[in-house]
Amino acid sequence: MEIYKKGIIFVISAPSGTGKTTLCERLLKILPDLKMSISHTTRQPRPYEKNGVDYFFVDKKNFEKMIVNDEFIEWAEVYGNFYGTSKKVIFDLIKNGYDILLDIDTQGAKNIRKLYPDSVLIFILPPSLKELEKRLLLRNEDKDIIDKRLSKASQEISQYKFYDYVVINDSIERALNDLLCIIYAERLKTKRIEHNKIDEIFKK
Amino acid sequence: MEIYKKGIIFVISAPSGTGKTTLCERLLKILPDLKMSISHTTRQPRPYEKNGVDYFFVDKKNFEKMIVNDEFIEWAEVYGNFYGTSKKVIFDLIKNGYDILLDIDTQGAKNIRKLYPDSVLIFILPPSLKELEKRLLLRNEDKDIIDKRLSKASQEISQYKFYDYVVINDSIERALNDLLCIIYAERLKTKRIEHNKIDEIFKK
Repeated sequence: MEIYKKGIIFVISAPSGTGKTTLCERLLKILPDLKMSISHTTRQPRPYEKNGVDYFFVDKKNFEKMIVNDEFIEWAEVYGNFYGTSKKVIFDLIKNGYDILLDIDTQGAKNIRKLYPDSVLIFILPPSLKELEKRLLLRNEDKDIIDKRLSKASQEISQYKFYDYVVINDSIERALNDLLCIIYAERLKTKRIEHNKIDEIFKK
Repeated sequence: MEIYKKGIIFVISAPSGTGKTTLCERLLKILPDLKMSISHTTRQPRPYEKNGVDYFFVDKKNFEKMIVNDEFIEWAEVYGNFYGTSKKVIFDLIKNGYDILLDIDTQGAKNIRKLYPDSVLIFILPPSLKELEKRLLLRNEDKDIIDKRLSKASQEISQYKFYDYVVINDSIERALNDLLCIIYAERLKTKRIEHNKIDEIFKK
């Protein structure tokens, strides 16, 4: 019996290479009432990425227009590319009765928290920096990109204290289970209950 | 990898007949690092109950002595019997590295929350009052005891708003899963982390 109000915003942040994307994909497969909010970005699509699925790929001019029109809940510049979360994308998902999964960086997470104090902020950590470096090397990215990412990771990691939950991805199955528990538990919080549903239960 | 500080106090309250005892027993079997705090009581043991296992059964004189000596975190009189949670029992469990499960009423839960703001308060509800009455009838208790319990249940139910989580026991397996998720999720909260364990992870 579900008695909570849909529209919970779950924010997931993690240093690049932590396994966040895999974890989010697995979560979405398991939870049909959870939808990923698709971000807008000006960066070039990777070969396997699809517009409207992985991101909305837009050019810088259009992105800037959206900024001016106040169409983003949050946006940020990362490695020279822009990323933003569109208000319309979020509002449409809430209107359609979904909980929302947001994959954004620590800066964006702080903005979401300000606008939605009841959002749930989850930080995913790798089991060690060594392991993170290993995973980045497996992606065959340039040495200087890896160095940039490792340096950013160290900065970002200090931000975990700002989050509600910390999940360590030492095993995908275990981290996935942790995330599922966080989502299920948050849905059971008294502050999220539709109180008229409780009244229903106690009608004689 | 577990990085949280043990000693979390989980308080479970529920109207009598909600299935709380069964749920707590199942939880304890699954989670070896969770221990039930055994209460002191002046009520007569039921035939299947064992001293030191279900309760510490004490007479009224000894219970009153413990009150005077400030040995209880909380105590209450229910249907003419006294129930109390001994400080020593709790402290010993925390000292030995356990999380604690407390099965107490709404009055006791409020006292725990005052003393331990980081405790986790969970309220279990039956799927309906009708269902609760049915379950109480199955226990073969006296009609006037059932009426008393139903009347108390109605009063108690209004207290759910004071709790952190609400679990509806429409199915034991589902409610058990809800409780497990709450416990796992609480252990992942940033505020419960031993921060030096995070530092360990990020040593180069």
